[in-house]
Amino acid sequence: MRVLIIHSDYLKYNVKNKTSMAEEISESQKNGLFNESLVVFTAVEKKDEINPKGIVKNLVKEIIKTNDQVKAENIVLYPYAHLSNSLSSPETAINILKDTEEAIKEKGLEVNRVPFGWYKAFEISCKGHPLSELSRTITAEEDEEDEEKDEKGPKS
Amino acid sequence: MRVLIIHSDYLKYNVKNKTSMAEEISESQKNGLFNESLVVFTAVEKKDEINPKGIVKNLVKEIIKTNDQVKAENIVLYPYAHLSNSLSSPETAINILKDTEEAIKEKGLEVNRVPFGWYKAFEISCKGHPLSELSRTITAEEDEEDEEKDEKGPKS
Ligand SMILES: [Mg+2]
Repeated sequence: MRVLIIHSDYLKYNVKNKTSMAEEISESQKNGLFNESLVVFTAVEKKDEINPKGIVKNLVKEIIKTNDQVKAENIVLYPYAHLSNSLSSPETAINILKDTEEAIKEKGLEVNRVPFGWYKAFEISCKGHPLSELSRTITAEEDEEDEEKDEKGPKS
Repeated sequence: MRVLIIHSDYLKYNVKNKTSMAEEISESQKNGLFNESLVVFTAVEKKDEINPKGIVKNLVKEIIKTNDQVKAENIVLYPYAHLSNSLSSPETAINILKDTEEAIKEKGLEVNRVPFGWYKAFEISCKGHPLSELSRTITAEEDEEDEEKDEKGPKS
């Protein structure tokens, strides 16, 4: 999964036309305005289909780590296919985004998810400080910290 | 080279801190506002160093083709390293961007180049119609026109 994380004064969006993979949305999801937000543009990739739970875990970890530094008031998950040439199925992408939203919510943070599969008009500002634009490749692998922990346990 | 092309009501930027690869800029280049613009976010890649002239030629062709469809008043070249994991040297990137600017100018279009190597605050709007967001991989090949491109139609 490729992500582009932007620390923004605001993100505003309006859905326009549906694409063939548009998710069903309520009236209230047709537009949104999020001030002081960490906007996470996401492209879920083919290889993420192997272990979606691992992707969610590491994406949540990365988002929390970044937000611990920039301290945004809102986290916004924005589907953005343009970040990759090798996209997953829409089903995998939507599930990963929903599970990520849920996991961040459980940590007590304000989080919103922008509709998947719609053409959207949007406006965004990027604050411009050194941590206000980051790109990452998220894999499903256990990170070093977890590996170290594993190594301390019984060896098989 | 990876590009993300956004048809915008406006793009606004302000330079903040220099990075180690910041180009020298004049006072007037420190900020800019471009209404009704085709903003071309660009990441020049390692492999583009082999034939920079070929990259410029195909990038110009792609920009002109897109602008023939959306008819923006301004073309804005915006350096955006976050679109790739495999960047060229800063020198190659700046030269490709300068040569692209020059070539588009020669075609009689209004074109501006946003400074390379600076942290920047920016604001952008994306119009949201189906051609208002496109991503492309630009290669140096002669027959690119005939090759399959990684066009992204419907966007999530
Ligand atoms: Mg306008």
